[in-house]
Formats: sequence, C-alpha cells, structure tokens
Amino acid sequence: MSTTLLPLADAAETVDYASAGFLILCASLVLLMTTPGLALFYGGLTRSKSVLNMMMMSFGAMGVVGIVYVLWGYSMSFGSEDVGGIIANPFEKFGLAGTDGIVNPFGYEGYGNIPELAFVGFQLTFAVITVALISGAVADRVKFSTWMVFSGLWVTLAYFPIAHMVWGGGLLSGAETSLSSLVFGSTDGAANVAPIDFAGGTVVHINAGMAGLVLALVVGVRVGFGKVPMRPHNVPLVMIGAGLLWFGWFGFNAGSELAPDGTAALVWVNTTVATCAAMMGWLLLEKIRDGHATSVGAASGVVAGLVAITPACGALSPLGSIVLGLVAGALSAYAVGLKFKFGFDDSLDVVGVHLVAGLWGTIGAGLLSTSTGLFYGGGVQQTVVQVLVALASLVVSGVVTLVIALALKATMGWRIPEDVEVAGIDQAEHAESAYELATRGGRLGGATPAPGATRSSESLDLEGAK
Amino acid sequence: MSTTLLPLADAAETVDYASAGFLILCASLVLLMTTPGLALFYGGLTRSKSVLNMMMMSFGAMGVVGIVYVLWGYSMSFGSEDVGGIIANPFEKFGLAGTDGIVNPFGYEGYGNIPELAFVGFQLTFAVITVALISGAVADRVKFSTWMVFSGLWVTLAYFPIAHMVWGGGLLSGAETSLSSLVFGSTDGAANVAPIDFAGGTVVHINAGMAGLVLALVVGVRVGFGKVPMRPHNVPLVMIGAGLLWFGWFGFNAGSELAPDGTAALVWVNTTVATCAAMMGWLLLEKIRDGHATSVGAASGVVAGLVAITPACGALSPLGSIVLGLVAGALSAYAVGLKFKFGFDDSLDVVGVHLVAGLWGTIGAGLLSTSTGLFYGGGVQQTVVQVLVALASLVVSGVVTLVIALALKATMGWRIPEDVEVAGIDQAEHAESAYELATRGGRLGGATPAPGATRSSESLDLEGAK
Amino acid sequence: MSTTLLPLADAAETVDYASAGFLILCASLVLLMTTPGLALFYGGLTRSKSVLNMMMMSFGAMGVVGIVYVLWGYSMSFGSEDVGGIIANPFEKFGLAGTDGIVNPFGYEGYGNIPELAFVGFQLTFAVITVALISGAVADRVKFSTWMVFSGLWVTLAYFPIAHMVWGGGLLSGAETSLSSLVFGSTDGAANVAPIDFAGGTVVHINAGMAGLVLALVVGVRVGFGKVPMRPHNVPLVMIGAGLLWFGWFGFNAGSELAPDGTAALVWVNTTVATCAAMMGWLLLEKIRDGHATSVGAASGVVAGLVAITPACGALSPLGSIVLGLVAGALSAYAVGLKFKFGFDDSLDVVGVHLVAGLWGTIGAGLLSTSTGLFYGGGVQQTVVQVLVALASLVVSGVVTLVIALALKATMGWRIPEDVEVAGIDQAEHAESAYELATRGGRLGGATPAPGATRSSESLDLEGAK
Repeated sequence: MSTTLLPLADAAETVDYASAGFLILCASLVLLMTTPGLALFYGGLTRSKSVLNMMMMSFGAMGVVGIVYVLWGYSMSFGSEDVGGIIANPFEKFGLAGTDGIVNPFGYEGYGNIPELAFVGFQLTFAVITVALISGAVADRVKFSTWMVFSGLWVTLAYFPIAHMVWGGGLLSGAETSLSSLVFGSTDGAANVAPIDFAGGTVVHINAGMAGLVLALVVGVRVGFGKVPMRPHNVPLVMIGAGLLWFGWFGFNAGSELAPDGTAALVWVNTTVATCAAMMGWLLLEKIRDGHATSVGAASGVVAGLVAITPACGALSPLGSIVLGLVAGALSAYAVGLKFKFGFDDSLDVVGVHLVAGLWGTIGAGLLSTSTGLFYGGGVQQTVVQVLVALASLVVSGVVTLVIALALKATMGWRIPEDVEVAGIDQAEHAESAYELATRGGRLGGATPAPGATRSSESLDLEGAK
Repeated sequence: MSTTLLPLADAAETVDYASAGFLILCASLVLLMTTPGLALFYGGLTRSKSVLNMMMMSFGAMGVVGIVYVLWGYSMSFGSEDVGGIIANPFEKFGLAGTDGIVNPFGYEGYGNIPELAFVGFQLTFAVITVALISGAVADRVKFSTWMVFSGLWVTLAYFPIAHMVWGGGLLSGAETSLSSLVFGSTDGAANVAPIDFAGGTVVHINAGMAGLVLALVVGVRVGFGKVPMRPHNVPLVMIGAGLLWFGWFGFNAGSELAPDGTAALVWVNTTVATCAAMMGWLLLEKIRDGHATSVGAASGVVAGLVAITPACGALSPLGSIVLGLVAGALSAYAVGLKFKFGFDDSLDVVGVHLVAGLWGTIGAGLLSTSTGLFYGGGVQQTVVQVLVALASLVVSGVVTLVIALALKATMGWRIPEDVEVAGIDQAEHAESAYELATRGGRLGGATPAPGATRSSESLDLEGAK
Repeated sequence: MSTTLLPLADAAETVDYASAGFLILCASLVLLMTTPGLALFYGGLTRSKSVLNMMMMSFGAMGVVGIVYVLWGYSMSFGSEDVGGIIANPFEKFGLAGTDGIVNPFGYEGYGNIPELAFVGFQLTFAVITVALISGAVADRVKFSTWMVFSGLWVTLAYFPIAHMVWGGGLLSGAETSLSSLVFGSTDGAANVAPIDFAGGTVVHINAGMAGLVLALVVGVRVGFGKVPMRPHNVPLVMIGAGLLWFGWFGFNAGSELAPDGTAALVWVNTTVATCAAMMGWLLLEKIRDGHATSVGAASGVVAGLVAITPACGALSPLGSIVLGLVAGALSAYAVGLKFKFGFDDSLDVVGVHLVAGLWGTIGAGLLSTSTGLFYGGGVQQTVVQVLVALASLVVSGVVTLVIALALKATMGWRIPEDVEVAGIDQAEHAESAYELATRGGRLGGATPAPGATRSSESLDLEGAK
C-alpha cells in the first residue's frame, strides 16, 4: 500500500493480472511444499531422536537456497548470456538486477505477460525443494554445517546448470543447439522432437534422486542399518506432509503452465488422478505382497504419483495419467526395497520414490503423450529423446554430486560420531529434543532435561538466574 | 511448459483466465480439505490405536473416488444425456471424453468462460470429501477393504445421482421439470421458486450425514460404546484439521460461484462470520451447560458453522449469517449427544454435525434469504421448497446407503473381529502403529515392536537380513 | 450457484476479476495464519499441560473479532465519517451496511476495482491475527473468559483506531492532516513524506508487540518463571506453525498490494528472501553464541523475518531485503533474552519477535527504501517519519492496553489460581487434556482419565449411562 521502485507497478495495461496472480499464488504453494510439507513428511518418517535435524535440513535448505537464488541462481539459470548450452553468466542478473520488467518467459503465443519477478519467485521455490528432497537420503547422521555448505554448493553446481540446460534453452531443451536437435534435427530454430518435461522430472526429481543415491553411498549407512528396525516415529506427521505436498504440487505442476488456461486445467486433473492411481498401485502391491495396505504406503504412493506425473502432466490424457500413476505406485513400492539388496542407506527412499518415479514419468511421457507418444502412434522418437534427456541429467547430477560430496568428506566431514548418532542427532547437533509430553502423572521419559531444548537465550539466562 | 492435446490451451481470447485461475486454485483448496484436513480432524478425534485407519479412510476415499470420477462420475453427474431427472449416461463422457472445450457451466450471463476440465476438477473434489465425511460414523471397527468397495459403490449410486438432481438440472434443481416446478410452477423454463443450495448442503452434507446414520446403524456400535470413555487422542491434530478445513472451505464455498465476483466476496465474508458465530454458539452452550468451553467444542463448532453456511452463503447478508451460525453451533452442540440417547454409535458425530447443521443451513436459507426468505418478507414458499429438497435428499441417500450397506454386510462383512477391535485396528488392518515416541530414557511403551510399522518392504527385507 | 442480494454479482464489466480473485484467496491465506498457523506455533511452544488453552486463545480471538469486525470494526477502521483523524463512526457501516458496491480502496491509478466485501474480508483477517498474536505474552495463566472479553475490547479500542490512523486516512497516514504533513508539510493534499507501512508493521506488529509487553507486566509472571525450564512440548508443531505462517504471510504482504501486479511480485520475492536471511541470522547468532543452531531458533527467525519485512516489502530491493532480514533475525535472537534480564514473562516472545522486529522493519524501511531511504541517498526525512509513526503507535497501543488490562484486572481478574496453574490450565479452564497416547502396553501416563476430555456432551451422557 505504498509506492515502489518498479515502474511496472501500475502497468495494468501490459501485465496480465490473471496470469500474474495465478503464478504468485502457485509460488506460495510450492514454497509450502518444502516448509512445512516435506519437512513433515521426512520428519515423521525418521525416529523421534532425529526428527528436528530432519526438519532442519529442509528449513536450512530454504534459508541457503533462497538467498543464493536471488544472488546468482536466477542469473545462472535463466540469464541471457549462455555459455556452451550448459550455464549462464552468474553476474548478469546478480541480485536480480534488471528483473523489474515484464516477460513472457517461454515466448508462447497467446500468453499474457507477467512481471519477471513473479517468474523469479516461482523458480526460486523449485530450487529450494530440489535441494531439500536430497536430505532424505542421509537422515539421522550428517553434520548440519556440512549440509548447509552442501546446499549452497550443490544448487550452484548441479541444479542451476541442469535448470539452464532444460528450461533456459540449453543442451537438454528443444532449442536448435540442443541434444535432441543433434539427434533428430531441427526446423526453423527448434528441435523436431522437443523433450517433454512439463514441470521438472529431470531438473527436480531425477536430479535430486541421483544426488541422493550418490550422497547415500559417500556418506555411508547408519549404525544398525538393515539390522534393527528404524520405524517412522509419527505417522500422522507423514500423512500431513503428504497432504501438504499434494496441495502444493498443484502450484508446482499447474503453475508451470504460467497461465490459468486449458492446459493448466488438464494438468490439474492429470496430477490428481495420476496421484490417486499411484496411491492405489502402491496399496494394491502391498496388499498382495504383504497382506496389508499401510498408511505410510499410501503417503509414499501419493508422492510417487506426484513425481511421475510431473514431467508428463501436460502431455497426457486423464486416462493415460491413470496408467502412468498405477505403474509409478507399484514400481516405487517395489523399488524402495532395493536399498536393502544393494546395501545403500537411502534412509527415506529418495531413490526409490524420486529417482525411480522421476525416470518412469520422464520416459512414460514418451510412451503416453497423446500427440507424439509411442502408444498413440507417434513413433519411437519421443521416447528416445526422453531416455536421452533422462540419462544426461543422471550423468551430470551424479558426477557433480560425487565431486562435491567427496570434497566435503575430505574437508568438513559428513558424519557425526557414532555414539552421538546412536544417542540421537537432535541433542548433539541442535541441543533440542522434539517432544516434552508431560502427562497428568509426570513428564514422559523422566530423564534429565535437555538444557538447550528451548529458545537458546532462555536456557542461557536461566543458567545465570540460578 | 510443453504442448498439449487440447486445442484450448492458448485460447486466451475465449477463456476468462481470472475465473479459470480462481477455480483451479479453489479446487486445490477443496482437495486439501480431505487430505490432510478431514483426515487430521477425524484422526485426532479417535483413539491412538485407530488413528491410522481413520486417516486411511480419507486417503482411500480419495484414491477410489478420484479415479471413478474421471471414469464415469463426471458423465453421470453433469452429462447431457439425462435419464428421468435422476441420472445422466455414464458412458457419454467416460474417461472425460469430450471435455476439452470451454464452458459456462450454469449459463449465467456476464460470467467468463472456463475450461471444462477446471470445472471437472473442482467437482471431483466435492465427490471425494462427501465420501470421506461418512467415515467418521464408523470409526475404529470396519474392514478397510469393505470401506474401499463401499466408497466406489456409494459415490456411484448415491452421490452422482443426487449431484445430478441438484446441480445437473435434475429433480431437485430449479429446472422446468423439477420438484419445485411441480409444486409452485415454472415460468419461461425455470421454477418459480428455485431451491437454494449454493455449495452443497444437500449434495454433500445432508447426503453424507444421512449415509453416516444408516451406516452406523447397520455396522453397529463399538465394543464399550456408552460404557467407557473414548477420548480424542490428539486434540492438536483436531485443531489443525479444523483450521485446514476452514481454509479449504473458502475454495468450496467461494469457488462454487465459479467466478471471483461480488457474490464470491459476499460468500467469503458470510462463510467466515457464520463460522465464527457457530464456534461461539457451541462454546457458549458448553460453558452454560457444562461449565467449560472446550477446544474440541471450538473445532466442532467451526465445522458445524461451515456446514450450515454452505447452502446459504450466497443468499444471506452478513448479519443473517451470524444468526444462522449461532443457531448452527448451539444446535449441533446439543445434537451430538443424541447418539447416546438413541444408541447409535456415530463415532465422530457425522450426524450431529453434518446432518443436523446441513439440514438447518438448507432450511435456514429459506428463512434468511435476503431476497426470498420468510424473515425478509419473502413468504413461505422458499422455505417449503427447501424442506422438500432436504427431505428428498434424505430419502434418496438413506435408501441407497441402506441397500449398499446391507449388501456389503451379507458379502464382504463390515466388522473386524471383536478382540482385534479392542487391541486396535491400526495393527490389524494396516500392520502399523501411529507413534514410536522414544525418549532419552527409552522407547515409549516398551512392548515388542510392530514388525510392519515401517515401509512394508523394509520389514520384509529386514527379515531376510537377519 | 444461486442468486444473490447484491446487484454487483454479475458485474463483470466493472469488477477486475483478477484482482478480486487474488484478494479473496489472499484473505483465505491470512485467515490460515491464525487458525491453525499461529495456534500451532504458539501451542507447540508451550508445555503440554497448556497447549489447548494456548490454541484456544487464537481460536477464541477469531470467533470474537470475526463477529465484531462485521458489526462495527470495518466501519470504525475504514468508514468515511472520520473523527479527528483517530477513528471513524462505528454506526455508519454497522453490520457491513452499504458495502455491496465496488471500490478502489486507496484510489491508486491503474488499479482494477474490487468488490468492497473482498476488501472487508481481507482486512478482517488482519484484525483477527493481531489480537491472537498478543496471547503469546500471557501463556499458561489467564482465565479464558477474561481473554475473550479482552479480545473484543482491545480490537475495538486499540486496533480499529490505529488501523484507521494508518490505513483509513488518519493521523499516521500520508494524508494532508496527518502527523507527517504537520512535520514536513504537504503538497496537493498529500504529505510530502508519506509514512511507509506496506502491510502492517505498525498496525499489526508494533501494536500487538506493545500490547503483549503491557499485558505481560499487568498479568505477572508464571509460577517458576526464570527458575524452572519451560521448554516447548512439541517442536514439530512449532515447525508446522512457522511454515503455515510463512505461507499465509504471502497473502498478508502480497495481498496488501490489492492487485497481482509487479509490486506484488516484488513483495513476494522480498518477503521470501528477507525471511530466509532472518532465519540464517538467527541461526548464525545462536551458533556463534551457544554453539548450536536450534530448530526453535529457525522457526523464530522465520517469524522475525516475516515481521520485519511486513512494513518494508514494497519499498526495498531484494538485496536490501536480505540486509533487513539478516539484522532482524540476529536482533530478535538477542532480544528474546531481555525478558529474563528485566523480569517480565513475555512467555512466547511477542515482544522479542513482534515488537522488536516490527520496530526494526518500520525504521529499516526508512533506511533501505530504494526511492527515499537514507542509505539510498534519500536523506533522513523518511527515517524520521518512520520513527515518529512507530513511536505514536507504541504510545497509543501501550496506553489503551494498559487501561483495558487494569480494568479487567480489577473486575474479572486475569489469573487462574496458582495451584491450578501448576496442575495445568487445560484441565482447569477447558476440562481437557491434549494427548491420550496409548501404547501397545497401556495408556501413557496412567492417571485417572479427565472426564471432560471429549465432546462434552459425550461425557455428560456417559455419566447418565453408568
């Protein structure tokens, strides 16, 4: 309710308010996915002695990536000064310099113009959640300081480049100079077979999933992994988290259309029905295999469905989305067991859910696209392009993550001491415990109080007051 | 960020983006009402041994109804091939065939066109929550598989017909061939006294409330009902649930206007103030009767107010909404005690809240409508029509639910074994327990771990690893 | 889906749907901030024996203020019949009479018109949360009935006047007759140096923070304050609350622009990045001072950042917002310790977070405004005006709160009996306990069940059934 530095402010005649408002609200929904959505989903799945550390990895990623994105992330992802199709100049729009105008980000005809800052905000939230997703692979055991440094490095060296390659007109886009053009040629400056990645199957899910796999391997397994059960300590938190993720994902997928048009409506319906189908797929596989359909399975199936439909949601019919979702749910329900077979402690199944469903969704879009899909008579080219793009993302994410992870291992170190891990990372890293559930008969647990489990200043001053 | 199968995608010149974006976001809010909103509200009200089963009934309803709605639900509700004013042809738009165009669903003048798929998505979420609401009547004691089959059958045989009758131009609408036209005549193809049901007092709340009553009677009471206290195990979950329901209900009520116009704004204000008044009504009755105002009462009052204002929110003034809400809160606070008098175990008060407040809101709209209401000099006709429509919904819902419930009782059976019910349905039906709250001194409870209380694949592979 | 009393309903040619839809959805987000957002944030920070009372203070404030706002609050804040620049006539628009038209609330050129009721709804949510914020200062120890009466009195005598002074064209606005015009003159009917308060640094945060300080002093400290640790009983609830507050705050800040334009997009980005920076500021100060970064610190830093950016979000650049946020986080992390030094029991740090960050944000806007700020070469005038406005709000809020608090102390009384406070306010005031966490081995705590910890009617009838 004041004036602003931007000449754009009152330019109602040029900004499409309907698209701008839609995008601003969708960005808010995507931010909710990380804090508190993912923080709750992951937090509930851990043991009660490490829930706060788990939630802090999401909140911490938000803090670091939010700032980094404003400083150089947007410029590296969507700047105009491309370097070899891989990255853009971080200094061009450093601190969001020169973003006070109006844009039509992907140059679609018929789209309304939006403030560039609305697009910046929307994209910022994608970078945040991609980093936060990775944290599930290394639950309960890593130094918070190392995680914070990793967040800044990884988003800069892995996320921004892949975002630029896929969405910024780089190697994995549909541009004339892209991988797809190299293989199947281009016409009038655009690849003949444009890769399909509506909302981030490659940039977000394959990327985070592969990073999770590499990180789990470098960091190593938890004490007792595969020997003692490590059950979710608070399943209702998992269910809240899954529900908030679903809600926020509408912003993620429908918002990626950048306008509330017919495609956005189709995306909404496809996102919903694919997720319903994936939940059913997971529950059916559990019921058949184990005799019980679990609530953690339902929540996981929801996430698997949301991941799988992410790249495909604009290209499929609702019926195709049901097929994609059913397969995604069953596939991920099977894949989350692989870590025990292969011995990597991907604690909260970033690989089984995000990598596997992300790969399936990206490739499935090539099979089920109603315009170019193999099953719809579109030939094999789209599917080949999808596989290529998925593999390229895998390789870039894997190599970059490996380098960062090893460098941090050699310097700051990843692991907390083994006895501290057994005692619980919340106490050691954050001087807090999650719950102080007193009952009418006395406080639960009864052990000595954790001195720091309060606003830290309070405990400090209490010391002085004694 | 890709192409789509719909020719509509870029048709900015014909779609009203502002209405479409509003509706897409409102649909997202309504989906949030079920998962996690209602799941939390109901889950917190149950005992800790059955919270997961309670939440799974909401998630499961989402999975089944989401898919069924895409397959035949939309066609049965809003298809053009009407059969006797009761239902539409399920095959006409099976799998959402032919819904890729633009519509003005209720033909209002001055409204912008919206993608039909945005309307589909919005309506889908109403079907989902109506089914989920019923589950509160049969907490703690029914087979999950029977519930899942019931969800698919009930939404098909009870919800879609009533939705068609009220909103699809059928017997309970304001059409020339409707019940109201039969009683009070019609002019130029429309009933002289159109029933008022802005957002679903009949289709959603009377329908779900009556189904809950019938189901509670067929399924029977819980072990210990009326003898041992069955207190809410986690009241903060109830409060989160109530808050999320309130938030999502703005999508439900204001979104039902299908355009962000002056009526939508009036609906927003009425929804808020009626809910505030209902909360106060419930708390005042409690304070006077019991000496204490409870937080479960506040949460329940919130829901009662939201239910009551649902049919009336577009027809009342803000002052009228305060009156409607106050009465709704006090009435429901009284009505939730009836189950003990009459001996039906409507465990979480679907009848006391949804049926009673739904009936009051539907009839109250006839009294308090500023244009046609009895208290505003509009005569008795509107109220008569409201009572007729409410009774018709009651009868249809009651009969259909009874037939389905008895059929399932005779085949799959409803109840889990009595000893399993006492031990806790979460373990028996889902092989999970909700909480593993370790303390610094050891794990809470100390009993042997539940082997399945994890992602099921983990426990399976753990067996192999031992 | 019905007719309405408002002639405005279908006036698509005059209402800007995009702005109206944006504002209606933003109002929904702001309501979510109080219930359940703030209720959870505050509830998690208290001890488990008082969480329900804490949540009830938010829900209760919603109930009272929602109704009062419709009756006389809007008229007192934004009515046209100004009295001395301090308040407007409560009877002019009593019950929202005459608000069925279309408005351009602040008369900005280029803005679309919106239904006045959308503006009413949006403003209502601000009044609600301001009252609820205060409750954190008096956790665990005050009569619920006194709190409810306080809510109605305080919003009427403190909030509506300050809202009128700042936003309704009164003494603290940029009007010709304002304090700023008195000091620095006016030109063409507007102050030469208009105060900057984009979304409520004075009206909401300084106001609530000062009221919290006064109330904490009048009510007195809790039993054991400064002697026994009073740790947050459920930190994950705090994290959910902080996340929902952040999400809702986008509605609060961006919605205050009243149109989804370039300024709204800038506000969104500034709100996000300032909050990230404040979280980092708080965590860094904790890490340096105490050796640990806590999750309660992260959640508190989020709120401090949101508070600080509230007045400034439309006037700063993203880089300036980072600076503002970093300082806000560190400042509040320091300030929450002051209560122990000075001996006032501001239990949940309303002063340390809302008053301190609110003051900093209001004054910081004078330093960092890109158009008029001291650090941007705009001279000292803006900062002087900001300090004046902040001090005026402080004084009005402080004096009015003191009078109300003392009057209630002398009549109804504030405190519950000391032994009841020790036993737990939830039982005494609400006849409930928050948790009944049964385990496989028996119910947690094992004490005698609280007879009222259920829907009250249930326990009543149970008595009868025995």
